[in-house]
Amino acid sequence: MTALPSIQEQNRIIPPQLDVPPRLLLGPGPSNVHPRVLTSLSLPPVGHLDPYFLQVMDEIQVLLRYAWQTDNPLTLAVSGTGSAAMEATLANVVEPGDVVLVGVMGYFGHRLVDMATRYGGDVRKLMKPWGEAFSLEELREGLETHRPAILALVHAETSTGVRQPLEEVGQLCREYNCLLLIDTVTSLGGVPIFLDHWGVDLAYSCSQKGLGCPPGASPFTMSPKALEKLQSRKTPVTNWYLDMSLLTKYWGEQRVYHHTAPINMYYALREALRVVAEEGLAARWQRHLENAQLLWKGLEEIGLVCHVAQEYRLPTLTTVRVPEGVDAKAVAQKLMKEYNLEVGLGLGELAGKVWRIGLMGYNSRPENVLLLLQALSQVLGK
Amino acid sequence: MTALPSIQEQNRIIPPQLDVPPRLLLGPGPSNVHPRVLTSLSLPPVGHLDPYFLQVMDEIQVLLRYAWQTDNPLTLAVSGTGSAAMEATLANVVEPGDVVLVGVMGYFGHRLVDMATRYGGDVRKLMKPWGEAFSLEELREGLETHRPAILALVHAETSTGVRQPLEEVGQLCREYNCLLLIDTVTSLGGVPIFLDHWGVDLAYSCSQKGLGCPPGASPFTMSPKALEKLQSRKTPVTNWYLDMSLLTKYWGEQRVYHHTAPINMYYALREALRVVAEEGLAARWQRHLENAQLLWKGLEEIGLVCHVAQEYRLPTLTTVRVPEGVDAKAVAQKLMKEYNLEVGLGLGELAGKVWRIGLMGYNSRPENVLLLLQALSQVLGK
Repeated sequence: MTALPSIQEQNRIIPPQLDVPPRLLLGPGPSNVHPRVLTSLSLPPVGHLDPYFLQVMDEIQVLLRYAWQTDNPLTLAVSGTGSAAMEATLANVVEPGDVVLVGVMGYFGHRLVDMATRYGGDVRKLMKPWGEAFSLEELREGLETHRPAILALVHAETSTGVRQPLEEVGQLCREYNCLLLIDTVTSLGGVPIFLDHWGVDLAYSCSQKGLGCPPGASPFTMSPKALEKLQSRKTPVTNWYLDMSLLTKYWGEQRVYHHTAPINMYYALREALRVVAEEGLAARWQRHLENAQLLWKGLEEIGLVCHVAQEYRLPTLTTVRVPEGVDAKAVAQKLMKEYNLEVGLGLGELAGKVWRIGLMGYNSRPENVLLLLQALSQVLGK
Repeated sequence: MTALPSIQEQNRIIPPQLDVPPRLLLGPGPSNVHPRVLTSLSLPPVGHLDPYFLQVMDEIQVLLRYAWQTDNPLTLAVSGTGSAAMEATLANVVEPGDVVLVGVMGYFGHRLVDMATRYGGDVRKLMKPWGEAFSLEELREGLETHRPAILALVHAETSTGVRQPLEEVGQLCREYNCLLLIDTVTSLGGVPIFLDHWGVDLAYSCSQKGLGCPPGASPFTMSPKALEKLQSRKTPVTNWYLDMSLLTKYWGEQRVYHHTAPINMYYALREALRVVAEEGLAARWQRHLENAQLLWKGLEEIGLVCHVAQEYRLPTLTTVRVPEGVDAKAVAQKLMKEYNLEVGLGLGELAGKVWRIGLMGYNSRPENVLLLLQALSQVLGK
């Protein structure tokens, strides 16, 4: 080896030990995490082909099927955050020229449009005001007009707090011979989901909301019908990291190395899903609903108005209208500064107009509702 | 809401509490992790726009610049494992039709070819036997013949244990007006790297090897010249999740939400980089070299042969030839079963022909060398 150049020291900082502030995360996510999940996260890593780890992966797959109520063999966790799982659904099934119909009723609908366009989709949009959901009739009209290969809908719009009803939508898609793709980022683990019963072909989610895990490993599932579309592609999937034709060889029987999985994130996700299974979906959904109702009642009592009609309101995420003359950001900053309490600001069209309050996973507890209402009252001078 | 379908219980398993086996990870990664890093990993998450977290991100950027010896403003961690960071380099700068010249001297060179092809590159290969490195003259000839927009090389080939010398390669690339892209997955934090001095334009790495952190957040850097290529693209980056024109708005001054970062992984990466800065690069590189030399000497003493000539041998990862008549896999399995000791098997062309022994980051310690040599002797009956 030749003599080395001298080492530059200007970036050699030694910052202090991490001293994380004790935030209560009642925004749109991440949420606080069950202590058992944090403990699992910090267990020593093993190899990504270690038999022990392969067992962990298998358990994650089964538990995700339970959480989503699907029997899709291709159900796994993507090695990234929710947006990576979102991209995985589109990257695998959209081929250049495919008509993709996206129901846009908020920020994440627009993201679906953006991603599907990048992968060459001929993207059409169904639009809806931010705070409303599509009716079955509107979806039927959209399918009739555009005849898409894929219909993409957001089950739980994190930017608006709307729950999109999905009963009978799958049936409609069968009629029009298109795949149904849904975003369950803010619904999985907190809101009733029945993927198979609804006839959903592709779904994705994140770990840090209803599942109560830190972000970094994200649920993905694909029906046999969607898999067929992947297998009959004329062009390879552009995205190597998220290519399911490669990933299934790692998650499936073959155990072929693809990439080094984020081992510790999978420990944490397994534990979070184990907590879900212990509680049971029925009890968990009920808990989320009850705490949300407590929040809604309390907001009304201090004169605040929810942005979404109760019928379509998500139990996991509530958008609250900012009263006339109130600075939304200043209120959020005050909640953070005085009470270590995080709420979300409005996104996109709702910027400045709403706060977003999340009660998700481990955080969906009456004491958090109580504290939030009290703190919000104080800051608003109610 | 209409009445819910009944909940299917067949996937509601409750697996036992995680009870991770105490592996010593002396394969090609992941490696064992400094206890301080594991402790940081399990701190409670804060929001991805929390001022405290933004500070953590800033510190990661500075510390990565130190570790890589670069002043590139665009230096950050990608929210995925090393392969995602690899894909990020290509996805951002390769435009359809760009000539990409890849130096292939092992498995990860082939992966670069695969990815660059998916993004529309006109990919040309320079080939070298697995276990050797390219000479400057060979690289010059390649540039002369192919006149590429990008030359991609693997600094530390994880499949062969070869260190590709990079002195003067950047200068050569300037002469031929092409960008230099390098894989530092198995070198960052363990082997001397001087990105700016060498004139490297794009580099990526992982967290779980020389940096001693679990996998899941991966170093990425891009020179101003590479950024110019990104900014003058005619087509948008296909990969949304890894699109640096969006990511820089989150990591830079603007702090625009892109995706929810893997918060806890960033805590861990910051701590791992802090450990690197405390030790200092000179001491750290020296430690890796000394322990590797100890290993090489010991291997020789028990009659085993290193696959790579000493001049090009990586201190982080050693490939050891499997003696005639020995079943490589059986030996690895025995090491695992009897001593909880993981070593790597050969990959691709070297499958069955070598073991891969990693001494990386926290694991590069004399006691690990001692144990490995002793265990290997026992299992081989030496």
